[in-house]
Amino acid sequence: MRAVVIRRFGGAGVFGVESVPEPAVAAGESLVDVAVAGVNFADLSHRTGVPARPLPAVLGAEIAGVRRSDGRRVAALLREGGGYAEVAAVRDAHAVVIPDGIDDLQAAALLEQGGTAYAALTAAGRIRPGESVVVTAAAGGVGHLAVQVAKALGAGPVVGIASTGPKRAFVASLGADVTFDPASPGLAEEVREATHGGADLVIDTVGGPLMRAALRFLRPFGRVVSVGSRYPGPDQLSIDDDLGVPSVGVFGFWMRHVIEDRALYEKVTGEVFGMALRGEIVAAVDRVVTMHEIGAAHEAMAARETTGKVLVDVRRTWAGQ
Amino acid sequence: MRAVVIRRFGGAGVFGVESVPEPAVAAGESLVDVAVAGVNFADLSHRTGVPARPLPAVLGAEIAGVRRSDGRRVAALLREGGGYAEVAAVRDAHAVVIPDGIDDLQAAALLEQGGTAYAALTAAGRIRPGESVVVTAAAGGVGHLAVQVAKALGAGPVVGIASTGPKRAFVASLGADVTFDPASPGLAEEVREATHGGADLVIDTVGGPLMRAALRFLRPFGRVVSVGSRYPGPDQLSIDDDLGVPSVGVFGFWMRHVIEDRALYEKVTGEVFGMALRGEIVAAVDRVVTMHEIGAAHEAMAARETTGKVLVDVRRTWAGQ
Repeated sequence: MRAVVIRRFGGAGVFGVESVPEPAVAAGESLVDVAVAGVNFADLSHRTGVPARPLPAVLGAEIAGVRRSDGRRVAALLREGGGYAEVAAVRDAHAVVIPDGIDDLQAAALLEQGGTAYAALTAAGRIRPGESVVVTAAAGGVGHLAVQVAKALGAGPVVGIASTGPKRAFVASLGADVTFDPASPGLAEEVREATHGGADLVIDTVGGPLMRAALRFLRPFGRVVSVGSRYPGPDQLSIDDDLGVPSVGVFGFWMRHVIEDRALYEKVTGEVFGMALRGEIVAAVDRVVTMHEIGAAHEAMAARETTGKVLVDVRRTWAGQ
Repeated sequence: MRAVVIRRFGGAGVFGVESVPEPAVAAGESLVDVAVAGVNFADLSHRTGVPARPLPAVLGAEIAGVRRSDGRRVAALLREGGGYAEVAAVRDAHAVVIPDGIDDLQAAALLEQGGTAYAALTAAGRIRPGESVVVTAAAGGVGHLAVQVAKALGAGPVVGIASTGPKRAFVASLGADVTFDPASPGLAEEVREATHGGADLVIDTVGGPLMRAALRFLRPFGRVVSVGSRYPGPDQLSIDDDLGVPSVGVFGFWMRHVIEDRALYEKVTGEVFGMALRGEIVAAVDRVVTMHEIGAAHEAMAARETTGKVLVDVRRTWAGQ
């Protein structure tokens, strides 16, 4: 089979399309003929060896394709990578069947980021209909889906925070009731007014100063669900001052805890695919590339030039085929 | 009227029973002929001038009695004190009618601590039936009510943590399914086993090391509601390490945010009184004292000799009357 292999850690030039043996299948795994693989920001870090994986390595943590054992279309998350390939060994516990009516591109684009958006709002945030929701980085991979999922769950108003005019226009097109610039000096007051006294729930994928500001968006008994952070520095909260005085909560969120709970994973992916089938949510796709274009795609993502999911169609070997 | 007045801050000897004018009534307030006042740990701090109130002062932040304007029995929380008196000026917004079938002692004992237990479990903790609950200091003022309220809400299993054998026997008598000693070196494993893999919700009134340990009791998407802390030191959490890696949440809780939201306050007190009427919860009362015995009661509370609510029957002037 063909796969995109790295034999050393480094820049976007380390990828090479090679012919390699199909992966070995362990107990509880199945082979999947991959149609589409997703590119995640975590892949960029893995490419540089953070954390280091055994070399040679095939990156890529999410795929859609056809499971050989039963011929069904499945989407799957791959904890140890292997997605940038024509064939992947997939843990059966981490694969879900894709409903008819959802294509491979949407399935691959929705699986992790749509699942994160849905589970952050429900399993962590315990959203109830009519509650107000604020989404930071609302044009981002998780953010743009969180806006749509929140609306589909009956939240209101839904506030999107995004850093440029075009991004805010995109967020408004997704159904956000109002959008704000994170650099606005009056952001906390603006959000409190838009949510009639404070937000019930904030989905934050930014961290750092904006996450701290989000604590001041909340009404009493509101909560922030922190879905990762772009800030490597200190992320300390005071239980008394930051949480007790305003009576608010902060959740951490890691999708791993959804994936490892089969009943929850099926529930989350089932709801996400159901919303997609009903047209309530659509994953934005920035580009679909070939195996040969993965390095360039990594560079575009690192430069923050992409504004939607980057996917790899592993059945194509060059642009235009 | 008679009232227990302090004219200087200090030890338990500063109280004096005096004859003083009835309090002035501001707009939105009503006079209540007090039957019972509660003694809270916060009163001990106020007595020493932390924070300092204008002197002379009448302490006491919760009462049950008869409202003069309509003759109805009410329970009320008094943000600025005034409860240790025959007559109190009560904010109408902070008073609720006591249902027939609940006596003044139970009403005064349930109002703040039962309300705290109920709101911490519901408004902050968003408990669902069947979820497992852990209560720290489960024999304490809020704790012993949190155990009973959790059971009444259909939680299970309910785990009580208490520091002595007699306290654990008391907690078991309240309906806790299992009890543990906070000093047990295997506490986290014991709790995780008793809750079949980790608790959904922890109600913590201890803070410090036990609060940090509680983070390890939780299953993914579990949460700790921190209802105050006995530890004056640092109370910092790392969003990523403490909350993100295990996918858990921490809430702060301040009863003020219930009291200031009239609809929520009525909901919370209505549910608490309803549980009491159905016999689902009972506030433990350690002793009922006279105005002259308030100083001794403060000393007993400071020495942690009390194991239930301390109440003042302001209509009695000496023991045995």
